[in-house]
Amino acid sequence: MTDRIPVLVDCDTGIDDAMALLFMLAQDRFEVVGVTSVFGNNTAAQCAINSLRVLELVGRGDIPVAVGAENPLVGEVTYLATHVHGSDGLGDAGLPTDVAAQPDSRDAVTLIDDLSREYAGRLRILAVAPLTNLAHALERIPDLTDRVADVVIMGGACDAPGNQSPAAEANIIHDPEAAQVVLSAAWPTTLVPLDVTMREVLEESDRSALFAAGTAVPEFVARATDFYFGGYGWAVYGRRASPAHDALAAAILTGDIVPTVFPHIDVDVDCTDGPSRGATIADTRAKYRRFEGVAPGRTRVALETDGSFPRVLVETLIGFGERLGIR
Amino acid sequence: MTDRIPVLVDCDTGIDDAMALLFMLAQDRFEVVGVTSVFGNNTAAQCAINSLRVLELVGRGDIPVAVGAENPLVGEVTYLATHVHGSDGLGDAGLPTDVAAQPDSRDAVTLIDDLSREYAGRLRILAVAPLTNLAHALERIPDLTDRVADVVIMGGACDAPGNQSPAAEANIIHDPEAAQVVLSAAWPTTLVPLDVTMREVLEESDRSALFAAGTAVPEFVARATDFYFGGYGWAVYGRRASPAHDALAAAILTGDIVPTVFPHIDVDVDCTDGPSRGATIADTRAKYRRFEGVAPGRTRVALETDGSFPRVLVETLIGFGERLGIR
Repeated sequence: MTDRIPVLVDCDTGIDDAMALLFMLAQDRFEVVGVTSVFGNNTAAQCAINSLRVLELVGRGDIPVAVGAENPLVGEVTYLATHVHGSDGLGDAGLPTDVAAQPDSRDAVTLIDDLSREYAGRLRILAVAPLTNLAHALERIPDLTDRVADVVIMGGACDAPGNQSPAAEANIIHDPEAAQVVLSAAWPTTLVPLDVTMREVLEESDRSALFAAGTAVPEFVARATDFYFGGYGWAVYGRRASPAHDALAAAILTGDIVPTVFPHIDVDVDCTDGPSRGATIADTRAKYRRFEGVAPGRTRVALETDGSFPRVLVETLIGFGERLGIR
Repeated sequence: MTDRIPVLVDCDTGIDDAMALLFMLAQDRFEVVGVTSVFGNNTAAQCAINSLRVLELVGRGDIPVAVGAENPLVGEVTYLATHVHGSDGLGDAGLPTDVAAQPDSRDAVTLIDDLSREYAGRLRILAVAPLTNLAHALERIPDLTDRVADVVIMGGACDAPGNQSPAAEANIIHDPEAAQVVLSAAWPTTLVPLDVTMREVLEESDRSALFAAGTAVPEFVARATDFYFGGYGWAVYGRRASPAHDALAAAILTGDIVPTVFPHIDVDVDCTDGPSRGATIADTRAKYRRFEGVAPGRTRVALETDGSFPRVLVETLIGFGERLGIR
């Protein structure tokens, strides 16, 4: 049991998931009580190992990591974003590939069941991957929405281009049916889409600051983002830079970042087989009146942030590294 | 025959179509050689009458106005935006409802056929309505794409909310199948979506300037926008203001407005029966690198403009009113 705010992180650990995990592990007010893995950036099995690698970097191999879904609700996985995250899945940043701890013997849904019972009404979920585990959990645990305080999701693209397709963002298009289940369930949801994650950009100066700190946590992130900067980041921005998608969702969960445009609106997911499959259809039509005087919808959506996140992330990681004292 | 650049306007004449027609009629370098009507803001039959009312206001009842499609390619019309444009279809601005001229005896496709032959290779088309007439014309006239210089379309929403649905803009959702045909045909297309039209906003000061001019053309537009300001404009902006969707497309056709972000990208239309039906799926993924170093797509899309259009529109209408000398 913890007096801190318990958080379960559901992730497909690649580079930005690792940043999100580290950002959460750095918090005094929050405790990461469990991690579940799902297919996406890699297989669920490998993503669990990657999560353990990150946890062991900061001496937290004790946190349970449970393997989740290897396939979406409908059909089978067709695509893993392994090329984005390096041959070792974490940006070839020198993190050991073998881990002392093993994944938890429970599957992801059982861990969600256990933790949501243990921390009933208090558990917050940070979901930064395809939403398959949460959809399965909603199906198997009828009162799950009563046990969970809220779900903060990195995913979607509202008034921004997609990334895996012109219309759709990767986490959502990996399992649109699951996303629709999770976004329409009776729990508070927050969506952190590409609209904001693509605008909070880590630059070379941020990477230099992380390196200069001289401790293990920021140095790992600096090395991993080096990989991101040269490949994915270059393709997207045309320069050495990168987003930190999942980490921004973590900072919005903690309140370190408060979006400047953050309305409650309805979001539905395109589950057709057409060209918009996986699109998040967010009703942003009231944006021109700053969402004033309109009935609120189901999901709180981060539509704009103020650009301060890279600084917050760098400072958090450097401070965490210093407190840990691991070099 | 004319030495000026010949333009055919395909419209469903409501308030902003009227503004677009007047903007084109005000041009020295361009000549409106024909107008075709289609269902949308009203029936195609009524929209033809409305176009004639606008033409007669400026003494151009001689321009042929042909009635076009009353229904989309697939299914039947389910919705006419009559409430947006007033009980007389033109903002109840006092324009006579009876006209001296009659619609042309030819149907819209025949007029397109005749004019595209007469002005082969030179004819420009301003399409500010559902694209049904142009889709029919492409089907009936195999070499139409060779005869037409280009098509400038008001329609769609790329990285902006729709208006008729969260995902879709009215002109496109009225006939998605036609839009897909027109956007994938082998002629140069320019798309002017809500991304820009919603950001070029007529304010009360613009309306005052139009009124103060004291001539018939700006006064009609001032009265018609008064209706727009109070209903549609208020709902959208939460204040007395309005977009001038179709007129902006006209100004982009003439070059009076040059979008500041104006890439050639691929645009497809969602023709499913899902929640994204009618969405324009524009591949804007290269926006974060200013579309540099990426292969160009089929359609030139206005993604950003500089906010100068209201001034351009007001000055154009006032100048036109003065030249005509009609009070």
